[in-house]
Amino acid sequence: MCRWMAWFGQPLLIEELLFKTQHGIVDQSLHSRLGAEPTNGDGFGLGWYGSGDGPAIYRSVAPAWADANLRELAAHVESPLFIAHVRAAIGSPVQQSNCHPFRRGRWLFVHNGYLGGLHAIRRELMLAIDPERFPDVEGSTDTEIVFHLALTFGLEDGPIEALERTVGLIESVAGAHGIPDPVQATFGVSDGATLWAVRYATKGPARSLFASADVDTLRRLHPDNERVQRLTDEDRVIVSEPFSDLPGVWQEIPEATAVTVSHGGVLEERPFRPQAVAEADLAGAHNG
Amino acid sequence: MCRWMAWFGQPLLIEELLFKTQHGIVDQSLHSRLGAEPTNGDGFGLGWYGSGDGPAIYRSVAPAWADANLRELAAHVESPLFIAHVRAAIGSPVQQSNCHPFRRGRWLFVHNGYLGGLHAIRRELMLAIDPERFPDVEGSTDTEIVFHLALTFGLEDGPIEALERTVGLIESVAGAHGIPDPVQATFGVSDGATLWAVRYATKGPARSLFASADVDTLRRLHPDNERVQRLTDEDRVIVSEPFSDLPGVWQEIPEATAVTVSHGGVLEERPFRPQAVAEADLAGAHNG
Amino acid sequence: MCRWMAWFGQPLLIEELLFKTQHGIVDQSLHSRLGAEPTNGDGFGLGWYGSGDGPAIYRSVAPAWADANLRELAAHVESPLFIAHVRAAIGSPVQQSNCHPFRRGRWLFVHNGYLGGLHAIRRELMLAIDPERFPDVEGSTDTEIVFHLALTFGLEDGPIEALERTVGLIESVAGAHGIPDPVQATFGVSDGATLWAVRYATKGPARSLFASADVDTLRRLHPDNERVQRLTDEDRVIVSEPFSDLPGVWQEIPEATAVTVSHGGVLEERPFRPQAVAEADLAGAHNG
Amino acid sequence: MCRWMAWFGQPLLIEELLFKTQHGIVDQSLHSRLGAEPTNGDGFGLGWYGSGDGPAIYRSVAPAWADANLRELAAHVESPLFIAHVRAAIGSPVQQSNCHPFRRGRWLFVHNGYLGGLHAIRRELMLAIDPERFPDVEGSTDTEIVFHLALTFGLEDGPIEALERTVGLIESVAGAHGIPDPVQATFGVSDGATLWAVRYATKGPARSLFASADVDTLRRLHPDNERVQRLTDEDRVIVSEPFSDLPGVWQEIPEATAVTVSHGGVLEERPFRPQAVAEADLAGAHNG
Repeated sequence: MCRWMAWFGQPLLIEELLFKTQHGIVDQSLHSRLGAEPTNGDGFGLGWYGSGDGPAIYRSVAPAWADANLRELAAHVESPLFIAHVRAAIGSPVQQSNCHPFRRGRWLFVHNGYLGGLHAIRRELMLAIDPERFPDVEGSTDTEIVFHLALTFGLEDGPIEALERTVGLIESVAGAHGIPDPVQATFGVSDGATLWAVRYATKGPARSLFASADVDTLRRLHPDNERVQRLTDEDRVIVSEPFSDLPGVWQEIPEATAVTVSHGGVLEERPFRPQAVAEADLAGAHNG
Repeated sequence: MCRWMAWFGQPLLIEELLFKTQHGIVDQSLHSRLGAEPTNGDGFGLGWYGSGDGPAIYRSVAPAWADANLRELAAHVESPLFIAHVRAAIGSPVQQSNCHPFRRGRWLFVHNGYLGGLHAIRRELMLAIDPERFPDVEGSTDTEIVFHLALTFGLEDGPIEALERTVGLIESVAGAHGIPDPVQATFGVSDGATLWAVRYATKGPARSLFASADVDTLRRLHPDNERVQRLTDEDRVIVSEPFSDLPGVWQEIPEATAVTVSHGGVLEERPFRPQAVAEADLAGAHNG
Repeated sequence: MCRWMAWFGQPLLIEELLFKTQHGIVDQSLHSRLGAEPTNGDGFGLGWYGSGDGPAIYRSVAPAWADANLRELAAHVESPLFIAHVRAAIGSPVQQSNCHPFRRGRWLFVHNGYLGGLHAIRRELMLAIDPERFPDVEGSTDTEIVFHLALTFGLEDGPIEALERTVGLIESVAGAHGIPDPVQATFGVSDGATLWAVRYATKGPARSLFASADVDTLRRLHPDNERVQRLTDEDRVIVSEPFSDLPGVWQEIPEATAVTVSHGGVLEERPFRPQAVAEADLAGAHNG
Repeated sequence: MCRWMAWFGQPLLIEELLFKTQHGIVDQSLHSRLGAEPTNGDGFGLGWYGSGDGPAIYRSVAPAWADANLRELAAHVESPLFIAHVRAAIGSPVQQSNCHPFRRGRWLFVHNGYLGGLHAIRRELMLAIDPERFPDVEGSTDTEIVFHLALTFGLEDGPIEALERTVGLIESVAGAHGIPDPVQATFGVSDGATLWAVRYATKGPARSLFASADVDTLRRLHPDNERVQRLTDEDRVIVSEPFSDLPGVWQEIPEATAVTVSHGGVLEERPFRPQAVAEADLAGAHNG
């Protein structure tokens, strides 16, 4: 049920992490080890910051392992911050508008996990989206609803807080419908200047999520790995599932935790605590 | 902006009307003459009744003229009732879930035209859909909303009346938003036993729509056309745009008119008059 | 590296074997157990005999598990003889013209396996194809070359003999290039009236291949299985990999063996022995 | 049938010429004015030089006008030299391996036109391709054969001469088969440092081809056009069909002419004269 990765650091040819790393995200599309399913072949997406206004997204319904264009792009586009996602659809159609990352303005959003009992609560959740944004929902995934709820709750001002309110709302609506386990998620968010990631499940264990260790540690662990030796202190990777050629490099992000990766590779952790959203707040959000 | 055709009569290899007729629907995908645009290359769909439960649908994002599978199906599937649609997207993504026909149970639905000012009224219209059906909306077209509204208003009991209420609701909601010209449409509907078609625009002229003449007339007009001579009294075709090899055969369906084609080729016309839907009725529909 | 299945017997809704059987071919596209790879997600194809002239083929580059149209077709097309194939590409592009089955006139052809060292011998093999047929090669798979060689060597008059000559030629050309292990294959062939299957590898073990047992045996083994009880003496299935809900039902086809399934479910086995093709014969074939 | 364009000059966001110019190449995919057909909807391709090794290519079977990813790439990739092509298929399948540009190493190749009577001469032409390159032919277009012939005849050392020999060979083979009008073509070629274009038909008129005028002329003609005012002396565009917002800007390339655009915008014209290829030379090419 999906895998994702994000790079933030020195500008890099995207293929370095998508194709040239052992057990990178494209290999995980065919042979995931830690996911709920080994195959993530129901489309994929790549979002990157670079030339032009805001982030670019390339999304395709083909499996990532078989998409010739993805190899081309990855081999010819350099970026200091990019997010890739491979999808295992659970119910919703395999179509570009259901592929991650989702985007609004400078913001990108990816998700691994699901909303439990979505069929019963989809309408109520969509009604909580800012009416102005409602017509922007193009696909039929749970993730796109989460993204538009988070935008409604202020993602652009504070993504972690907005996601805490979003998850709080979902858990509250789901609770009213007797759904016991509504949120299973890792989220990745960026505005091109900062990268945020969240690991959370209403009822654990949450989907796996890892951050790369400090570069000093990496260099000491892999003195003969040329790619590692080229890394600088500014480089950081967040992944659903570790690349296999770099043992010892990965620190698991704890459950119910949000991390913020700032320019310069600085990584900060904080607890992720869903916030109840009062009806009044909801109305307020719509007027905000 | 889209073309469609429907056949109801003796079982026919679908290719007879899709590929072997001059200026048939597939040719119209490339060279429409009466449409708002000559090209209808943003996907297509084919729905047919035959073996198995309910109608089958084949939908693709490829242009109809270039889809090898469509040629295969058309050459190897026989059906007494089928509907084909070629799409010119206006704004919404080219994806299978946006291709017509839409289906529920035994029902198929196609549309040529648009809802004016949809962005402003999409949310309000979707809220009027029966909450039970709300999560079934998979794509992002205006047509799918119309279909689910009509289902909400009783399409399965009386499709013309349900569409009159649907159009009434849309015009009412649009009016409240100051949208002057909200509905431009021909609709095609079937349950496998009857075929209905509607031609209507809030502000005309409506998109073109034609029915084939009585078979006696056809035979007299085209005594040397082998295909026409094989037709029986039971055969009837409804088209957005006439096939060009059968001049004199087509009767234009008047504006604001609904036609019903019953088994045996019987065609009945009646006026199509949008019905106002009171808020109370709307609530009632949701409990119906 | 690919899985295939063929049905020959009473007319059946195709979904019975594609989707309703446990561990059917579509499930094998995602979770193959006996294949060289678990995933066969690089497109698929379905060929069937029924209405219209000759067999129909539906081929798609989407993974079989995710293709909505395949579910539609399977649920609405009945056929007494059909062949389905799921592909794991090894080198050649994922495109419809590389999906099996391949077709000429009434003939369908599928293959599981590969030609070793193809790059070195492709040109020489293609030169051995009847020059008249040469321009009909549309894709870039080894299988399409095998098919056109077999057509050149008389597939339409005797498919097993033609394949024996084809394999003989390939082994001879490969031998001259020092390729030790050129042919790894199971083949499926039909003209709509008979079904042939071959299991052979220059150097074993060959890819797996199974035939369903006599229906009497099946009925006795599965007295409570409604689907099995509906089978008649005329029904026979050939599969790369057994469906899992019918233990005891499958007889492995031995290595280097060809089977012929005739109308009425009669299955005959014979050895498959590659035949050397002399240069003179090759020239003769081109004039044949 | 087909349209292409090439840019060589200052690094430019690709969308400037693909989407922001009036009647640019993407508009020409839907509404070509000078082409044999108005619609070029059977796939497209974009090749560009920039980051990474050699040129990147993005090719898709979707119509260019409907491909969301093309808009993304065009809006986020800058390049000093890129070639775009929209395709109208004539016979060969709509698949990525049939989309232009074709590539080898640093070289890109596009074609507008066709080889007459290809079916009769395909085999003979493919036999003339360097046997080492033969297995690299992945698709089924005439263009890919032309490209591999030209590579065989020294494209990488002198593209115009190689194309003269290629066209000479084709005309000679076609002549032997009584094909009166074998070559109809404009070609575009680049290695990233120089851009070449050819306009030629065995029997005219050849497909249209234009080069942009000197920038001084452009600036004087369009003093108020901001885009034109940003152009430098180094910028040059070659197009099948002029962009409509720049009247007076385009100089038609004469029939049977080759042009070379060097760094700095220098454009040189010379006659294009097909060269007979002796059998002996052909053998020599294969040993070259």
